[in-house]
Amino acid sequence: MYRYKITIAYDGTNFAGFQKQPKQRTVEEILERAVNKIAKKPAKLIKVYGSGRTDAGVHALGQVVHFDIPFSLSDNAMLHALNSILPLDIEVLEAQQVTSEFHARYGTQGKRYRYRLALGEFVDPFKRNYTAHWKFPLDLQAIQTALPDLIGEHDFSSFCAAGGHTKTNIREIYEATAVYDKAQNEIVFEFYGSGFLYNMVRIMVAVLIEIGSGKRPEHDIIRLLEVKNRDQARVTAPASGLYLKKVYYPKNFGK
Amino acid sequence: MYRYKITIAYDGTNFAGFQKQPKQRTVEEILERAVNKIAKKPAKLIKVYGSGRTDAGVHALGQVVHFDIPFSLSDNAMLHALNSILPLDIEVLEAQQVTSEFHARYGTQGKRYRYRLALGEFVDPFKRNYTAHWKFPLDLQAIQTALPDLIGEHDFSSFCAAGGHTKTNIREIYEATAVYDKAQNEIVFEFYGSGFLYNMVRIMVAVLIEIGSGKRPEHDIIRLLEVKNRDQARVTAPASGLYLKKVYYPKNFGK
Repeated sequence: MYRYKITIAYDGTNFAGFQKQPKQRTVEEILERAVNKIAKKPAKLIKVYGSGRTDAGVHALGQVVHFDIPFSLSDNAMLHALNSILPLDIEVLEAQQVTSEFHARYGTQGKRYRYRLALGEFVDPFKRNYTAHWKFPLDLQAIQTALPDLIGEHDFSSFCAAGGHTKTNIREIYEATAVYDKAQNEIVFEFYGSGFLYNMVRIMVAVLIEIGSGKRPEHDIIRLLEVKNRDQARVTAPASGLYLKKVYYPKNFGK
Repeated sequence: MYRYKITIAYDGTNFAGFQKQPKQRTVEEILERAVNKIAKKPAKLIKVYGSGRTDAGVHALGQVVHFDIPFSLSDNAMLHALNSILPLDIEVLEAQQVTSEFHARYGTQGKRYRYRLALGEFVDPFKRNYTAHWKFPLDLQAIQTALPDLIGEHDFSSFCAAGGHTKTNIREIYEATAVYDKAQNEIVFEFYGSGFLYNMVRIMVAVLIEIGSGKRPEHDIIRLLEVKNRDQARVTAPASGLYLKKVYYPKNFGK
């Protein structure tokens, strides 16, 4: 078998998330069908492995997936074959044949997420599926003061929704930024860390919005990390603003 | 009765165009329902009048509509009332009470359209509904050489699809530009003219793409304008790239 790593972008609007579910349109199922079509309907269904799930409505700029097929294709042939089959809301950005050491999910070293928060009184029709919207005043400086509290290794239990199943809730955040994009009238958050719990980015953003609107003290994140209790955070920002931007691996497994 | 002029933006993706049609989701019908709700379900249905139709999938950044309601509201109250009722793919950008002289359709002095053509080998999932896509080489200079041939008053019969019903096919184009947006890897066309025939912008763009890809001589537009025969143009660019950007009126009819 020959293993391929593919990097994909998708518009999450019309997907019930990444993971396969009966009778739902999911990224995993649509990718799997495309791969099996390229593999000429093998006797045993070829499975695809993503770096992790994304929820319904969440987008990807650089999700990573691997799969094994019974014959070898050039990277470029794989790229073109997949893009010619896939619907227009998924695009393969890169395809690479890799050694069997590579595993999209178990081999990750880190992930980077972006979150787009559109400001302004009304929802821009062209952004409704691609941002969250906030119409009230927001103190960006308070948010920027709070962000360093997330950096480092912490137990993020307060920032984890029920439904995840991980051995530990300890993760490390390497970078957390919030920048105002004047042209777009948006605040763009970025989070780079070792890994993220279920809904973690959306809970962090919602807490940061509460800090920015004066509903929480500036350093409430320190308290939340200490109490390790999801009920203290309470809030989750909408899926539409979230983008899985990049998945990191310790090395290039290219063949 | 009190007349209001509203300027609206809409994402055309999920609309069967502007004009009402049985059993279809259209901008006109959804606006009309909102206006009648604000007017508290008057005995006689209040109609809305757009500056013109847009086809299924065509977007608007500044469509103009008027209607009459039986009581007066402040401009700001009208703006908020409409936006609180309308779905998120239509946004009222501005509402203004105007004199009864104002007519959104018959009073227009000109219109400006934008057309976004995304380049690159594959379709970007986030642009699939908001641009047309062209993956072959395109000579922007050839297109820019051709554009001035459109300027001025001409019979645009060669650039008019069947289905329109206008007294004359003579229109005047004041401006026609094509600019390469490097950050987006797109060619952005803009056309400003006295008025546009049915599908006229999409046919012009398709002809310009053929000129840019060497399928037509650079000055073929001069010939097309002379022959006044739609069969000579043959091609229509997709709806997804087209935006009604602005509608012009001779003066401000504000009360």
